[in-house]
Amino acid sequence: MRVGLVGGAGAVGATLLRVLEERAFPVESLRILATRRSAGRIVRFRGAEVRVEETRPESFAGLDLCFLAVPGAQASRELAPLALRAGAAVIDKGSAFRLDPAVPLVVPEINGGLVEPGRPALLASPNCTTIPLTLCLHPLRRAAGLRRVIVSTYQSASGAGRAGIEALWSESAEAVRGRSPEAAAAPDRGDPAAGAPSVFPRRLAFNVIPQCDRFSDDGYTLEEWKLIRETRKILGIPDLPISATAARVPVFVGHSESVFVETQRPLSAEEARAILGTSPGVRLQDDPAAGVFATPLDAAGSDLAHVSRVRRDLGFDHGLHLWVVGDNLRKGAATNAVQIAELWLRR
Amino acid sequence: MRVGLVGGAGAVGATLLRVLEERAFPVESLRILATRRSAGRIVRFRGAEVRVEETRPESFAGLDLCFLAVPGAQASRELAPLALRAGAAVIDKGSAFRLDPAVPLVVPEINGGLVEPGRPALLASPNCTTIPLTLCLHPLRRAAGLRRVIVSTYQSASGAGRAGIEALWSESAEAVRGRSPEAAAAPDRGDPAAGAPSVFPRRLAFNVIPQCDRFSDDGYTLEEWKLIRETRKILGIPDLPISATAARVPVFVGHSESVFVETQRPLSAEEARAILGTSPGVRLQDDPAAGVFATPLDAAGSDLAHVSRVRRDLGFDHGLHLWVVGDNLRKGAATNAVQIAELWLRR
Repeated sequence: MRVGLVGGAGAVGATLLRVLEERAFPVESLRILATRRSAGRIVRFRGAEVRVEETRPESFAGLDLCFLAVPGAQASRELAPLALRAGAAVIDKGSAFRLDPAVPLVVPEINGGLVEPGRPALLASPNCTTIPLTLCLHPLRRAAGLRRVIVSTYQSASGAGRAGIEALWSESAEAVRGRSPEAAAAPDRGDPAAGAPSVFPRRLAFNVIPQCDRFSDDGYTLEEWKLIRETRKILGIPDLPISATAARVPVFVGHSESVFVETQRPLSAEEARAILGTSPGVRLQDDPAAGVFATPLDAAGSDLAHVSRVRRDLGFDHGLHLWVVGDNLRKGAATNAVQIAELWLRR
Repeated sequence: MRVGLVGGAGAVGATLLRVLEERAFPVESLRILATRRSAGRIVRFRGAEVRVEETRPESFAGLDLCFLAVPGAQASRELAPLALRAGAAVIDKGSAFRLDPAVPLVVPEINGGLVEPGRPALLASPNCTTIPLTLCLHPLRRAAGLRRVIVSTYQSASGAGRAGIEALWSESAEAVRGRSPEAAAAPDRGDPAAGAPSVFPRRLAFNVIPQCDRFSDDGYTLEEWKLIRETRKILGIPDLPISATAARVPVFVGHSESVFVETQRPLSAEEARAILGTSPGVRLQDDPAAGVFATPLDAAGSDLAHVSRVRRDLGFDHGLHLWVVGDNLRKGAATNAVQIAELWLRR
């Protein structure tokens, strides 16, 4: 398999290379493409050194399969047609085509059947919060139907790529070195953005920012709309009543989600646990009395949606609460894309 | 006014002294009481040095008013009767008496009328997440009634007192010094509690812990139950359908809450903003397109519930979402207690 990867210098790109190695994906040749700024860098893959090339219109010639892990939808919109025209299948980690009715939006454990093996095609991988959420909602829906969903997220800095990781790192080091907890906790008076790196709208270190991605006119962020619309598409429920609040927390890797689900038919917490405990792609970690629940530090490095604190709502008859944590770089991005590639490869 | 404070060496106690100074509370004499371990320490109040005394049964003699800011309900249960018997009014920051039907649970802006001035009495101040939540729910309830509430919290380390602040500080310094972001983000394999200070059940630095206080048998934590039961009592709606998920985030000061409210009568986001913008104790900070929303760093040092991101739910006809942030040491604890004292003083 002649494989291309655009965005190999980013956080998701680097994780994607690691996952291709781990899963022994049949890579015969590997071409790593990036912007001019990153061209010339050396990336290691299976012990060999691969030189990052600048992406050009002719870069896709001869590829069977190309992963796109580029920031921003516009880059994918330009590159995907070039790769497809060159005869490659394209798996896009970005948001450009996810809601296109002609493009399958794939979580392999849920709707892997949408992938037609071997045919050059454009396939989209969902947003990093959507994947763990749908892995939990899908089996609950099959068991009891879904009436409503409300999600509040606790998203890590790496959701904003390598720049996000570096911003949190430098802000934290700055706050810790030679300062007191009181100073680190002091309000940023005056210009709230003073000294904040441009990647986040406020200082993230020792703070919570109720904004991921840009705001749309209705007061929801694009990140919240991604979670809402992609979940509806993957589950095949176009009118599913679902709302979301997405917040950024000072964590490096791992997105957490506090999820309220109202089912159509009653489902006890015990039944929900039994269902989730045997669902593909899900790891149930739910024995709070024994200290068993998932945190981002526990889920980092994992390819599963970790589910904890499954319990009945105290107001809704058919309401359940879940605490869901996933590694946003792995199953939330790289691993899901490689799993899609494996389905595409299957003959 | 002869004032006593038990717990003057803690995070809330220190903030309480600062708030008494700021608000020029008429303190004629001040007695600061603590455990034997903290006795002998010197605390500054209005430029003078006050020596911390060990709490004894006879410590309350001659006091008009005594604040209790001690960790754990048991200490309050032992000390409150002693202070009351000595003729002092008692304002308890702890959870021991909050749900006692004979004890007013007071948020001055909501139910300050429950405080009878001058009479020795036991008065309770609510939990640090309850106060900002009820400040927002109360005016919405008066305008449109409440049908259901769902809350997910993002609580700071100082909610666990000085020990919580110190644990997050030392964990963060340890993670930052001489290590890489990758190492700081690495999963804590093996014993997840290895090296974690006893104050939190896992490492909090660069992590999110879906547990505040202990778990009860039904899967909810005591912190979640406090928020639920205290909100019902303060609003006077004993059967209000309300559920909560409380999580600890690596923030020093300031609790955030993602709040879903379903009202009985329809209320647009514009109407809700107009109501909240003129509610006592509330500061509306809601112009996301202009970057105006509250974070813990913005709200630290404030005595108000900061409300942002007021918007309609996408599934419920009468549903609204709010992002609420409050300084848990000030309005969430010390300031509310001093405001109760001011009501009690009023003649």
